[in-house]
Amino acid sequence: MQYVKIKEAIVEQIDSGMLTPRQKLPSERKLAESFDTTRITLREALSLLEAEGQIYREDRRGWFISPDPLVYDPTQTLNFTNMALSQGRVPETQLVSAKSMLANKQAATLLDLAPFADVYRFDCVRYLDDRPVVFVTNFVRPDIFPKLLSHDLTQSLTDIYREHYGQVYQRIRYRVSTTSLLGNMAKALRATAGSPATLVERVNYNQKGELIDCDLEYWRHDAMCIESVAELNID
Amino acid sequence: MQYVKIKEAIVEQIDSGMLTPRQKLPSERKLAESFDTTRITLREALSLLEAEGQIYREDRRGWFISPDPLVYDPTQTLNFTNMALSQGRVPETQLVSAKSMLANKQAATLLDLAPFADVYRFDCVRYLDDRPVVFVTNFVRPDIFPKLLSHDLTQSLTDIYREHYGQVYQRIRYRVSTTSLLGNMAKALRATAGSPATLVERVNYNQKGELIDCDLEYWRHDAMCIESVAELNID
Repeated sequence: MQYVKIKEAIVEQIDSGMLTPRQKLPSERKLAESFDTTRITLREALSLLEAEGQIYREDRRGWFISPDPLVYDPTQTLNFTNMALSQGRVPETQLVSAKSMLANKQAATLLDLAPFADVYRFDCVRYLDDRPVVFVTNFVRPDIFPKLLSHDLTQSLTDIYREHYGQVYQRIRYRVSTTSLLGNMAKALRATAGSPATLVERVNYNQKGELIDCDLEYWRHDAMCIESVAELNID
Repeated sequence: MQYVKIKEAIVEQIDSGMLTPRQKLPSERKLAESFDTTRITLREALSLLEAEGQIYREDRRGWFISPDPLVYDPTQTLNFTNMALSQGRVPETQLVSAKSMLANKQAATLLDLAPFADVYRFDCVRYLDDRPVVFVTNFVRPDIFPKLLSHDLTQSLTDIYREHYGQVYQRIRYRVSTTSLLGNMAKALRATAGSPATLVERVNYNQKGELIDCDLEYWRHDAMCIESVAELNID
């Protein structure tokens, strides 16, 4: 099929280093011309490259070559800043909102709360090398962290937990699935609505085994891959 | 946006139980009529539902409601059959091919072999409740498993490893990323070329820490989700 050949030609240019990470691709019109194909076939090739995480689209700005993904090991440190720095990337976090609210269905389910219990909600966007890559929503139990909103929220939540409440994560349940970006979340990540995303849902427990908070991470799917080592029990 | 509303209407019908797992959706023409919309808008809604794993397409047969995903915990048992049975599913594995070959670039890299070293290659398709959900390629080191092809290959490889060679997996490195299904692999999973997929790459070590085999699993992305628990070291 022609679009697979076009896809392979572009992958070859990436592998050979002719196209480099973060480089913008020529316009779809120019690409279609240079591959002597139609816009429809070209778009099929670009969709495939997007599905494979080789390129990504910024809304209204066009297509770009994906940088290497951030390697995310859910069994190791879970601090985005440290994870990025240790991989030679420049991290940044922008707090979008921090508020106290009544638990919605999702928060109540994840945190095992009564409906309409109070909950804190934090939304932030995290960047790698100036590119927004993940939209994070945290729901936090206020009975464990009274007056949490009165702290300096430009710090990481886990730092505030440790320094002001003596709480650390000891145990984490996580679930990884595939979804798509829509609405405000797509906008915050400069993504076209409907772009593929990887959803990491985490529920976090403290030293006493109490459930203290949860977070929902919507990643640009090309920006991250999960990598880990498991030691098996042999009987 | 209209296609988001149509998507939400279909999700509601799934959540309420009006549409049940494995049920076939009406034709695109009929759906477009019943939502009083165009085929183009309807397809955008269906693509979103596919990206979110709510529906899947079988090539030339149409759209179906996705069953619950198989929960895959890479730190626990990795035997597909046991994993499926313990979750009340009916597993089946069909061996597609088993052969000895010269290592290609991929196999040489993963198994850390010299180029053109000998390697065994096994391809199989695994089914859940009669639906093909994952295409698996295994590359195996022949120096560790001499005459492997002479065994009854309808058994699981890990059973043959244990019973005939005294080898078990003790340590596993895995990587999870997103890709798409093409060519023979798409065909074997009854998928339309370009359908989204989750790729799990595993490299497996025995009791002595030797790298013994690797496998590449291309999952229908709606058919599986990763779920696990991590215990963190607190210092």
